[in-house]
Amino acid sequence: MAELRREPITRMWVVITKDHPKGPADYLPFKPPYRPQETGEPCPFCPGNESMTPRETFSIRRDGKDWSVRVVPNKFPFFHIEGEFDRRPVGMYDLMDAIGAHEIVIEAPDHDQNLATLDPRQIEKILLAYRERLVDLEKDRRFQQFLIIKNYPGVFNRHPHSHLMALPVIPKRIDEEIWGTLDYYQRKERCIYCDIIKEEIALGKRVVLETAHFLVFSPFASRFPFETWIIPKVHASDFHSIDQEKREDLSRAIRSLFRRFYDLLSDPPYSLTFHTSPIQSRSHRPEYHWHIETRLRLGLREGFEWGTGFFVNPTPPENAAAYLRSMTEEIKV
Amino acid sequence: MAELRREPITRMWVVITKDHPKGPADYLPFKPPYRPQETGEPCPFCPGNESMTPRETFSIRRDGKDWSVRVVPNKFPFFHIEGEFDRRPVGMYDLMDAIGAHEIVIEAPDHDQNLATLDPRQIEKILLAYRERLVDLEKDRRFQQFLIIKNYPGVFNRHPHSHLMALPVIPKRIDEEIWGTLDYYQRKERCIYCDIIKEEIALGKRVVLETAHFLVFSPFASRFPFETWIIPKVHASDFHSIDQEKREDLSRAIRSLFRRFYDLLSDPPYSLTFHTSPIQSRSHRPEYHWHIETRLRLGLREGFEWGTGFFVNPTPPENAAAYLRSMTEEIKV
Repeated sequence: MAELRREPITRMWVVITKDHPKGPADYLPFKPPYRPQETGEPCPFCPGNESMTPRETFSIRRDGKDWSVRVVPNKFPFFHIEGEFDRRPVGMYDLMDAIGAHEIVIEAPDHDQNLATLDPRQIEKILLAYRERLVDLEKDRRFQQFLIIKNYPGVFNRHPHSHLMALPVIPKRIDEEIWGTLDYYQRKERCIYCDIIKEEIALGKRVVLETAHFLVFSPFASRFPFETWIIPKVHASDFHSIDQEKREDLSRAIRSLFRRFYDLLSDPPYSLTFHTSPIQSRSHRPEYHWHIETRLRLGLREGFEWGTGFFVNPTPPENAAAYLRSMTEEIKV
Repeated sequence: MAELRREPITRMWVVITKDHPKGPADYLPFKPPYRPQETGEPCPFCPGNESMTPRETFSIRRDGKDWSVRVVPNKFPFFHIEGEFDRRPVGMYDLMDAIGAHEIVIEAPDHDQNLATLDPRQIEKILLAYRERLVDLEKDRRFQQFLIIKNYPGVFNRHPHSHLMALPVIPKRIDEEIWGTLDYYQRKERCIYCDIIKEEIALGKRVVLETAHFLVFSPFASRFPFETWIIPKVHASDFHSIDQEKREDLSRAIRSLFRRFYDLLSDPPYSLTFHTSPIQSRSHRPEYHWHIETRLRLGLREGFEWGTGFFVNPTPPENAAAYLRSMTEEIKV
């Protein structure tokens, strides 16, 4: 018998099929092949080709020379930093110009790394780069929401990179989270994510790993097989307020999770998004709790959800977490 | 400069990039390969193998013998028809058993057909099968929502088929549509879809084709390249109330659209969903307008939307509709 589980924040019902729960071996034959991304052209993200990118907005360098992380404006941005919104009607519709920031965080000099193979100290530098850019961008009062998104492998370039955006609007899923958390807070005067963290730690069966400051777990109503969230155990509404100790801890949690994915599912493609509080109100959010959501792109039985918001997940999160916990995971530093 | 366009029903902002709009040739190299689905095993949906499926719930047969469309319960259903919901809390979460109907509509005897190649008269039979099953299933007061979903090619079997479900809950996207349409109706006493139809016919630039009873168009805030909706021009809240003349007309519209997709994008994979009014209240919906939404699965730059509801579409719907209009489309009957 399958179960309908309700995602407690956005209240979406998810079908978890349990009769024949799928494990890692069921996904491997469906894993999408990596696209041919190496064109033979020089990679604009590799050291030595810095002139191929727009002028960097941030970098971490040793003695001011070799960089370990670089941030550059996207050469093909979804959003342009200059201009006015020009909000306007078009017939019965609403339209505005896409004003915003869209930068690329080049995560390492080495073309062939990913989160499963990077040294946690390198991941910490990536997190520091995110932070520095967010602190700078939040001064611009036009922006309402930050997005940090990583797709692995990248669509156009394998070189490890992520997208960092400052948007003039709040994306739908974040907006739904805000309303859901606000409604819960009004009823209980507690953050729903804080309650989820307590519940999951007490239960344990959906926990993948726990560090000093972070919980990594498979959510109760996981929409995707092996969906996993990384969340700070103490309430914080925005990612870029965390201190260096927490960044160090987070980088170890990220490395450990992605190493487990790598070993368990044979270097799977994935997406990762940071969910953090809207910008202008961020210090006033006792109800919103920043976190990272990860999705593996396993290619199985997609298509039911897109038009309907009706997700079917054949790997119960309890099983997913057990698989991930079982991985002997060794961080080489 | 990209545009942010607001989807008027669910109020989601979509980025339409316009500087380098992508046409069909930009998607062809990324088209996902069809998965190896032919195992050499006999196909349970082919004539002669009827005993491999559960007992059919409906069929269309010539002289009671050869079938042209068959409907059977799904052997591996997401929902089970027998039992009680058993709604219950699990700690802080909500859970219920997945009670519902999940049937497979086998759309033709021929293993290698699809909507682009089927005779419109065969598509009409598929629509009739949907109707007959919905009329039967709506008698069951436990069900709140019908879903009809087709993925091409199917994940486990190429044989043309679709999924028909009766759910005990309303999926998120339908629920959002209902609230959006209701809000508009309360303000204007008009159905928002009826207004969209008038606007799109008057403008013309996003129209793909128009039949006696149906409009086929690319919506203003298309989330996906070549996203296309098929909608009855006269208000109707539920699909299965349409009469035979409209079904005939709809089958020609479907055939024409999918033939254009096939020719323009070289037999692309696609998904299609029917959005129809919730079941128990369906005769009381002056604000809800049933329609079909289609999405091509072109594989380009996915990953930005899933965690955030932030869609980026590099093919403006005006361009998509122009490409689709330009196809010389010939229906062989």
